[in-house]
Amino acid sequence: MTSIPDIRPGSTLGIVGGGQLGRMIALAAANHGLKVHIFAPDDDSPAFDVAAERTVAAYDDVAALARFAASVDVVTYEFENIPAAAAEALAAKAPLHPNAAALATTQDRLAEKTFINALGIETAPFRAVDDAAGLARALAEIGRPAVLKTRRFGYDGKGQRMIRADEAVDVEAIFAEFSGAPCILEGFVPFAGEISVVAARGTDGAFAAYDPCANEHRNHILAVTRVPAPGIAPQTEAAAIGIARRIAEALDYVGVLAVEMFLVAQADGPSRVVVNEIAPRVHNSGHWTIEGATTSQFAQHVRAVCGWPLGDPARVAGRAVEMHNLIGDEVDDWAAILARPGAQLHLYGKGEARPGRKMGHVTWLLPPA
Amino acid sequence: MTSIPDIRPGSTLGIVGGGQLGRMIALAAANHGLKVHIFAPDDDSPAFDVAAERTVAAYDDVAALARFAASVDVVTYEFENIPAAAAEALAAKAPLHPNAAALATTQDRLAEKTFINALGIETAPFRAVDDAAGLARALAEIGRPAVLKTRRFGYDGKGQRMIRADEAVDVEAIFAEFSGAPCILEGFVPFAGEISVVAARGTDGAFAAYDPCANEHRNHILAVTRVPAPGIAPQTEAAAIGIARRIAEALDYVGVLAVEMFLVAQADGPSRVVVNEIAPRVHNSGHWTIEGATTSQFAQHVRAVCGWPLGDPARVAGRAVEMHNLIGDEVDDWAAILARPGAQLHLYGKGEARPGRKMGHVTWLLPPA
Repeated sequence: MTSIPDIRPGSTLGIVGGGQLGRMIALAAANHGLKVHIFAPDDDSPAFDVAAERTVAAYDDVAALARFAASVDVVTYEFENIPAAAAEALAAKAPLHPNAAALATTQDRLAEKTFINALGIETAPFRAVDDAAGLARALAEIGRPAVLKTRRFGYDGKGQRMIRADEAVDVEAIFAEFSGAPCILEGFVPFAGEISVVAARGTDGAFAAYDPCANEHRNHILAVTRVPAPGIAPQTEAAAIGIARRIAEALDYVGVLAVEMFLVAQADGPSRVVVNEIAPRVHNSGHWTIEGATTSQFAQHVRAVCGWPLGDPARVAGRAVEMHNLIGDEVDDWAAILARPGAQLHLYGKGEARPGRKMGHVTWLLPPA
Repeated sequence: MTSIPDIRPGSTLGIVGGGQLGRMIALAAANHGLKVHIFAPDDDSPAFDVAAERTVAAYDDVAALARFAASVDVVTYEFENIPAAAAEALAAKAPLHPNAAALATTQDRLAEKTFINALGIETAPFRAVDDAAGLARALAEIGRPAVLKTRRFGYDGKGQRMIRADEAVDVEAIFAEFSGAPCILEGFVPFAGEISVVAARGTDGAFAAYDPCANEHRNHILAVTRVPAPGIAPQTEAAAIGIARRIAEALDYVGVLAVEMFLVAQADGPSRVVVNEIAPRVHNSGHWTIEGATTSQFAQHVRAVCGWPLGDPARVAGRAVEMHNLIGDEVDDWAAILARPGAQLHLYGKGEARPGRKMGHVTWLLPPA
């Protein structure tokens, strides 16, 4: 006899954040008979269009967060930059998955890398930088090239600056660009490729990983995901999935997470895996799973946060899959894409196609090899 | 250069009807960046939960229909029992797909069968029945067993009565059961199987059919769909698809339609195809296409009514597919179904699991043969 979870169809899933990730979680939730309540500050948030209920309020409006959480059966979120006080306000009123500790650890690059290293998992070398003198010290210890990043609130290359080996370094001027924000200096990893592991952990500790995928970025924004990752060795795949699992277990994580990793070629044997960062949420590099996997990352996230059994992450019919983001005016190609046999077009219902804005994506299941 | 259709992403699709079909069309529309406005009389319609806008009004509220149609870019519907006046009110304010003639023809069993026969396509023998004397005449001409049905508003076996060969017939009493509604008597077709062809026709006349599927009914309600239809001959498949195409073209149809057919075994050669009825909409026997086909019937319908190119209807990786409806309290098995590897559970967000109510469905892609 199967035990019946607390969160039943007909319950309401609260999602903090109203962008395309929240929208796609909402579509998956609807497919499972759940109602969705979206909390987001913008009154034209794309996810509102597919949700039964919406709250328009700021992420630091603790009273609004508490009311929202009290009105739903379980809360999740689509991004990691929720203030700690917001997470506390939510968790006081409803089960919050992933938990507040996962948020706190992953929204601060220093805490995140310290946590990862404590698990015995390699990251780029890093130092905390709180002032110009600290930047000088960190550069002396780590060397160049290196990247100075804000500890918090960075995404898609925002809030970071490369410091090249050949530039004349003025630590005062560079640090001034960050307006005094706490920073981290990260050393350069001479990587041969970038992959991510998108995986889920259930309330019962079950773990299910999608096949690691290769990611290609342009202007710091994900452009293309390919799965399986071309040329990756089976040992490297297994190592990458093992790392994601250790991270998920150490965070007592519930839901889908993505771990971005660098592959560093080794002269003697399979590539070394170096973790870049953890996204405590569904992830752009998992969009291929909508058509490409038996259970999409969005359905998997819904299953996990509701306390339901995880679904099968296997690729559909073992097919290789390719996902291309539509960034900015690339979305203007929508009509041509619709006419291509087999192209799976997803559009996010966003208004203006500003440069760098993720407007949609296209997925292809590739022919059998 | 691809020409750009009138209906662009960001436009609003109006859907008349708020049940599970409207809900699944809405989910597909959202996936293509469209907003959805649902018109339905019940304020707890399942489709409302996934729509940006909702109008709660009766199907004969012509003023509300006109306001609704004026607020959207294109209108479609999820069921065929829209009054003619409603269709006119809609079509006066926005493109209506499928068109009003398709509605008028298919919502009346007499008009529908007359139309089908006029195309040279076989149906069960039938006679109009408007009174008890007419029933007596029709029974004399058609013989027994036969089925007396209301001309309009029947579904899932409602509004019909079998008249067996061995019963004592009192035409006055039988006709009285129908409260004077215009009826049709249909002769019995000794069928070996029931199939349906779910297909789409675009604004440009393009036509795309899914593989014909075999349907198994219980208590007049669809229980199981299997595709490909087991044991069906290629000539029979081609004949069935050809019939659907002729019907779609004769109606100048735009959107997805389903044609339900009986297969009658022949001593010498492939089965004869006899049309049972036409559904001018997405159809329960096409639910398998969500995971089983490259383009789901819901995405295909959205493409067609928006004037976009039709998508590929091929089965994913050529896999056979099975779809089981969850009727009434069968939905209580949801947790066990979620735990079965590969089971694709869809729940419609309906409140009470009344007997005979379609609460959800489950789809399986079967292993390669």
